[in-house]
Formats: sequence, structure tokens, C-alpha cells
Amino acid sequence: MKEAEKDPKKTMGITVKKNDDMPEWYSQVCLKAELADYAPIKGCMVLRPYGYAVWQGIMDFFNAKIKIRGVKNAYFPMFIPESFFEKEKQHAEGFEPEVAWVQSKDGGERFAIRPTSETIMYDFYSRWIRSWRDLPLKINQWCNICRWEVQDCKLFLRSREFLWQEGHCVYETEDECEKDALNYLEDYRAVAEDLLAVPVIMGEKTDKERFAGAKKTFTIESLMPDGKALQLGTSHNLGQGFAKAFGIGYVGKDKKDHLPWQNSWGISWRMIGAMAMVHGDDRGLVIPPKAAATKVVIVPIIFEDSKDKVMKLAGKVQEELKHLDAFIDDRDEYNPGWKFNEWEMKGIPLRIEIGPKDVEKDQVVIVRRDTLKKEFVRSKDVKATAEKTLEAMQKEMFAKAKKAMHENIVDAKDYNDFLVKLKARKMVKAAHCADEECEDLIKSETQGATARLIPFNEKLKQGAKCIKCGKPAKYAAYFAKAY
Amino acid sequence: MKEAEKDPKKTMGITVKKNDDMPEWYSQVCLKAELADYAPIKGCMVLRPYGYAVWQGIMDFFNAKIKIRGVKNAYFPMFIPESFFEKEKQHAEGFEPEVAWVQSKDGGERFAIRPTSETIMYDFYSRWIRSWRDLPLKINQWCNICRWEVQDCKLFLRSREFLWQEGHCVYETEDECEKDALNYLEDYRAVAEDLLAVPVIMGEKTDKERFAGAKKTFTIESLMPDGKALQLGTSHNLGQGFAKAFGIGYVGKDKKDHLPWQNSWGISWRMIGAMAMVHGDDRGLVIPPKAAATKVVIVPIIFEDSKDKVMKLAGKVQEELKHLDAFIDDRDEYNPGWKFNEWEMKGIPLRIEIGPKDVEKDQVVIVRRDTLKKEFVRSKDVKATAEKTLEAMQKEMFAKAKKAMHENIVDAKDYNDFLVKLKARKMVKAAHCADEECEDLIKSETQGATARLIPFNEKLKQGAKCIKCGKPAKYAAYFAKAY
Repeated sequence: MKEAEKDPKKTMGITVKKNDDMPEWYSQVCLKAELADYAPIKGCMVLRPYGYAVWQGIMDFFNAKIKIRGVKNAYFPMFIPESFFEKEKQHAEGFEPEVAWVQSKDGGERFAIRPTSETIMYDFYSRWIRSWRDLPLKINQWCNICRWEVQDCKLFLRSREFLWQEGHCVYETEDECEKDALNYLEDYRAVAEDLLAVPVIMGEKTDKERFAGAKKTFTIESLMPDGKALQLGTSHNLGQGFAKAFGIGYVGKDKKDHLPWQNSWGISWRMIGAMAMVHGDDRGLVIPPKAAATKVVIVPIIFEDSKDKVMKLAGKVQEELKHLDAFIDDRDEYNPGWKFNEWEMKGIPLRIEIGPKDVEKDQVVIVRRDTLKKEFVRSKDVKATAEKTLEAMQKEMFAKAKKAMHENIVDAKDYNDFLVKLKARKMVKAAHCADEECEDLIKSETQGATARLIPFNEKLKQGAKCIKCGKPAKYAAYFAKAY
Repeated sequence: MKEAEKDPKKTMGITVKKNDDMPEWYSQVCLKAELADYAPIKGCMVLRPYGYAVWQGIMDFFNAKIKIRGVKNAYFPMFIPESFFEKEKQHAEGFEPEVAWVQSKDGGERFAIRPTSETIMYDFYSRWIRSWRDLPLKINQWCNICRWEVQDCKLFLRSREFLWQEGHCVYETEDECEKDALNYLEDYRAVAEDLLAVPVIMGEKTDKERFAGAKKTFTIESLMPDGKALQLGTSHNLGQGFAKAFGIGYVGKDKKDHLPWQNSWGISWRMIGAMAMVHGDDRGLVIPPKAAATKVVIVPIIFEDSKDKVMKLAGKVQEELKHLDAFIDDRDEYNPGWKFNEWEMKGIPLRIEIGPKDVEKDQVVIVRRDTLKKEFVRSKDVKATAEKTLEAMQKEMFAKAKKAMHENIVDAKDYNDFLVKLKARKMVKAAHCADEECEDLIKSETQGATARLIPFNEKLKQGAKCIKCGKPAKYAAYFAKAY
């Protein structure tokens, strides 16, 4: 214990409360739980092993989903010739400020480091696709992405380089194309809600917020505990614009030439940030059981005279919980209290304590990370109880987060009410005229609130007027400041 | 059938024989089996879904191996500040010609796109490692790498950008460090031999061929059918040079400051190229069963009057072989012969043919891709026979490749014999004095043959002299031209 006390990195918990200073609390949680670290390069971060394990879980979960949909993984070059970039004008303009360029040593064309891969992939597609037999073409890649303009790294949420997946599919008909774009959005909802227990709202982006070059952009958004929205995944019906720009055509069953329809869709390691922000507490991270590679830590309470018995039971419990990647923290340089703090900081879902008295009573103590509730469990029931507890924990974490989110989504009576509620850090539902200038006005008058999405299944009242300008409304949108 | 004939891409097999023109044959196999494609960017390629499936297999296989050794995956930034690069002098000089640079828009320091990640990772390590408790530190990353000087892409073997893994570990003692470096080399042998059925020789690099900044470099090398050696993986005992350069130190159990020992190790998608080159034949690719995501294709022989019966049996067989990812090629626009050619080109290990006569006899025909041998099998025995055949195929493919490789590794009587045998495209074993200038002379006099490795367990005869200069020999090395 003495040595540990000398190590400031190890003994210091989170020094601010989540409710007092969310940004500082969030940064400390990510750093101290060892999910990530800031890089000595402007805007960059490293995904540490503990964070990578969550990312691996996301990859495995999502790969299984898209395999069912017939999507195959591949890998395309990260260098994109400048001339490709210019082919789809809106797209090029949208991404221009974010691109890092590499100059060829022989003085030839510049290459962009991919800020997204539409242009490089569709150049290949134009050669790979010949006839209706080659469609649908469904390809995904897991890769790194560069958005050079980012100067200040917000761990997971905003960084100059990040990891993501991007899916790019080609179809004969718009109907298939849009239906599938919505399928991938549903898979994103599953990653967020079913794996990470992070509640989301699904909908469509307004014209103003649409992806550069897309016909429609669908989105899943969540609301963080500080009242800021976080876009967690988007899926675009690209229409036929890219196909035209890149010369992607196919010969149909009718032997005639056709232009296909395309969609693209992506999620990034931002998902990990959402998980940390939504579930974490003043003790640190809380990882939902399904997203935790290691679901159980066993802490034996060691005294010299009973050590063997305690370790024997600990070993037996570990063996039974192998499938939950249970491990025993048997380091003798730290005391149990210190270990409890460390694993609470790291958010391991279950802690099992075993002391000499527990051995006598043939029991163990199971502690849930989210509620910190203790339960005494007979040794023979450990496996069943641990599994049941993890399942309940996953469900309850999601229910709690969902309730909290919906409590912060409110209606506005009029524009004044709208402003007051935005200021109170709510996400506000309001009818809107769909005019981009009107949307701009709202943004400037609220110091940054934007239309996050037009939720699906949200019906506009008959005769509804725009909250801002009073003209007839086109849709109801959710407004909030966003990360 | 008529439409298919109009599609040149689809109807054309490999137009050269493997023995007549290996480079052209190899390129055609990779392209036509759709493992990869050349990019419209100098030196770059795309890993297509069919090739990515092999890469995924390699990642899964290797991840399982290193998990046992306590290695965790992570992800570090691809941008490396120029100042980091200069810290380890030999390393910086070794990689200087290969680096692509990104200039910051604000005119500050240049950033290298990683040609390898020692420097960026060890900067983090210097902050993460404090005491003996933090050791050993074992981290691996799967990522893209840039070696900008490559102008002409040789698919999988040499490209400006490629995918690889790089492991970077830190230890208290050199003994642990070197032992583990050899452990990872053994894991690489397993990837090559046990998964891809590609035989390798294990050994150490000469001083001249060592990794820039390393104390020792270990390697696995294979010999391709054209007599050229292919380096498939290296593992380096880095000594303490990087620790010194990056200020990585730790407080030992003795409470004193120490310098740790480090190793690093990597394999790339080059492994896929070796697999294609070693096993392919004039019909195309042959994928060893363990490396094939899809191990079985079922081709029903369809006539109108017996279609239902044939499809029923095909469906039953597919169901039984689900665990081998068996699929039915039921496209009615191609005839069976055309389908046989396509799946032979793509190297699917087993083809199962089912026609009306087979249904009558309650049998199917199983054809092995490597030998093209046909076997008639009772329906009820399909599962057991398919599994047994795949196992035999894996073993026999490896045995055949190993025999072929060792037939091309020969001894040399004297320097003249050495030159003759190198010219005859053999790998030649010869005693050497270990002098770098002598090694340079051999390289220039043979138009490029280099010491590929000093094999483990190869004892030098007493009094052996250097094959080139006649001075006392230090070791026996294998010489060959290399990819």
C-alpha cells in the first residue's frame, strides 16, 4: 500500500463531480479509466487497450448485423487524387476545409488523406459494375479518417484522426436503396441501444444539415446529460449524383444502360464517448455488461491465516465465470479498498468480493457497478446470479438513460418559450418552415442551437406554424446545441 | 449463357501459365479471383472483399495467439511529429526515404504518415510506464502503413500503403524480451504454415539486413516457386536504444531507476500474396481450407424435369455444411461448366456437384480444388467426408509446398557453384564471414542476391571458410534474390 500511495496517477480518483463540470469530468473519466489519451499532436488521441476492447465489441456486433444484410468488408486506399475530389462539386466543397494534403515528391498531383471515401470507392465501382448481375454491391470498410481542421481534441467526440466504418452500396432502384439506408440506421440504433445502452432518436436531417452530396440524410441522435445533442450515426440516400459524377452505370435485364442508386453510412468511435458520458458517475466509468469485454473482477480479501481457503474459492468462482472473462485481482501490493476504487473507476460491471467469513458461510458478495448494491450469494448460485444480474443491469441502465433523455426533450409554446428551454439545456421540439435562412436565424439567436433531426413518426398538427417566423410549418424538428 | 459470353471480364481465365511467366500469372490470379485491384494512385491497391475475408481470417487467427501471450490491441495516431522521428538516429535514417509528409496549414512542424510506429508509441510509453508494476507492457495495433517511395505496386508484396499489425512490448529484462520476440516469431510461423499452408524457414537477419535501430532481427522467410525469397514476418529485439532515446524508464522493485528492454514485430497482408503464389495453379487461386471463409460451393446440375429434386438435395447438403459456409450457386444465367471455372479461379476448396443421376443414386460428387480429384459420396456421408477431405487437403497442400521449397534450397561447394545455383533460381546455403562489405560484393556480383537469414539450428562445420572471401566463417546463411 505504501508504494501505491506514492504513485499519484494511481491513487487519484475523478476530482470533479459529473454535475459540476461535465467536460472536465468526462475528460478525466476517459483518461483515468485508460480508455484513451491525448496525443502530442494537435487534435489527435490514442485509443488505449481498454478502450479498444469496447471498439472491438462494437465491430463484432456490427459486423454480425451487416453480414446478414449481405455486406462484405474490404479496404480502399487512404490517398485520394485531387481530381477525384472535384468530381462531385457539393461533396468537394463540403469537405474542402477538412482535408490534409500530401504532395507527391515528383511534383505531380496532390493527394487527399481520406476525410470519407465516396470518391475513391466510386472510382473503383465504375469499373467493377457492368450489369444488373453485379448489383446490389454492398461493401463496408473499417478504417482511419482524417479531418485536419480539428485543433482541439475532445476525446472520442472530435479529433483530427478517428476510427470509423463506412458502408457504400449500389442498387438498381431507389426503393431498395432507401429501404437499405434505413436498415443500416436500424443497425446503428441496435449498436447504441442494445449494445451500449445509449438511447437514441431516429430521424432525418433538414436540408441545411444534410451530408454534402446526398439526397437525404438519416440520423440517430442522443442527448447527453449536459443537454447537448450528439450525432451517433448517419446513413445517406445519395441518389444518383455520385453515379453520374463517377460514371457508374450498368446494363439492366432490359439490355439498356441505367444509372444506379447509392447509399453510404457510417459510425465512429464516438459511440464509446457517448457510452462514457451517458453512464459514468462520480466514481468513474460504468460499462454496460454487453459492451464490457471483462464483465467480472474477483477481489479476494486476504489474511495470512485464511489465504489458501479464500484463493481456492476465488479460483473456483473464476473457473465458473470464465465465459464472462472473470479475473482475480490478487496483487498483494494493494489493499481491497484500493482495488475496489480502481475497478469502479474502470467500470467493470460486477465485482465479487470473497473474504474468510464468506468462505465459512460458503458465499460470495456480488456488487453491481451501476447501483453499487451488494448481494450475498451462495457459492453454488454464483454463475446463475451473475448472469441474471448482468442481464438486469443492461436493461436497467438503458431504461434509466432513456427516461433521463426523454425528460429533457420538451415542447415549446412559442419562440420565447423555445429560447428559455434551450437555455435550460433542453432539446426542444418545434414546428419549422424548412427555410434555411430561418434555421440560420435560430442558430445565431441561440448561440448555436441547430435542428438535430426531423424525427420519424412525429406528426405535425394541422395548421401548425413555424416557431420562429410564423409561416406554415413543413415538419416538427428537434433543436439543441450539439457536440 | 449468351449474355455471360459477352462479358469479357467474366469469361476470360488466366491467359498465361504459372511456369511461363510468374509475375503476369500472379497479377492475373489476384485480379481475376478478385482478391485485389490496382488503384489509380501510384503504388496503391485495394483489398477487395474476397481478399479481405482471408485477411480477416489472419487477424482472427493471430489475435487468438497473442491474446494467450497477454497482448492487447490498441490504436495510435498515424501522424508522427518530425521531431519524434529524429530521436533514434539509425531508425530515422533507415526510414527517411520512405516517409510521406503532411505540412500543417499553420506552417508549424511537419508530420510523417507512419512508416512504422515505434516513435509515436514509445513517446506514449514514456508517460505510461512508471514502475515495475506497469511491465511487461504488451500492445499490438492493426493499421495502415505508408511507404511512399513505392512507385510500382506489386499486389500484396509491395505497395505504397498496406495493412499490417505491429506489436510493441516493454520488459524488465533482456531475457524476457528476447524470449518473447521469438514467441511472436513462432506465432508468425503458425500463421504461415498452420493457417495458410505456406512453409517458412526461421532464423536471424545478418547485421546488414537488420531493422533500423534494432539489436537483433528475427525473420520467417519463404521461397516462392520462381526461386525468389519472400520475407513474411520479422520480430526485433530492440535492445534499450529506443528506451534511451524516448526516455522510457521505470522504478524497479529495488526502488532504483532502470531502463527497460523492448521488442517490436510485424506481419502484413503480404501473407495473402504468398498464399496465392505458393498454391495457385493455371486455373487460378487455391485457398487452403483453414484460410477459406467459404469452404464449399454446391453446383446443382439443372434440367427442367428434375430441378426440384436436385435443388432439394442441394438444400439439404447446404444445411449440413453450414459450418463450412457452403452456398449454392443457383444462378440460371450460367451453365455448370462456366460455374466450375469461376469457382476454380477463386480457389474455393471443395466443389459439390449434384445432378439428376446423383439424386437417383442418393449421392453427390465432391471435387477437391488442389488435385481436382472427384469422389462419389453417399448423401448421408457428405458432412463427414467433406470435413475429412478438407483436413487432408490442408495437410497435403502444406506437405507439397514444403517439399517443393526444400528441393530448391541447396548447398554450394564453392563460390562458382554458389553463383551457378543462384542463377538456376535456387536458395543457396553458404558459410559467410559476417563482413558487410563482403555481403555487398555478393549482392552486386549476383545482381541482387542477399543473405535472407541465418537459420536457427544450422551448425557451421568446424573450420568453415566464407564462400566469398575465404576468411573464417561466422555463420551459415541462406542467400537468394528476394521480393
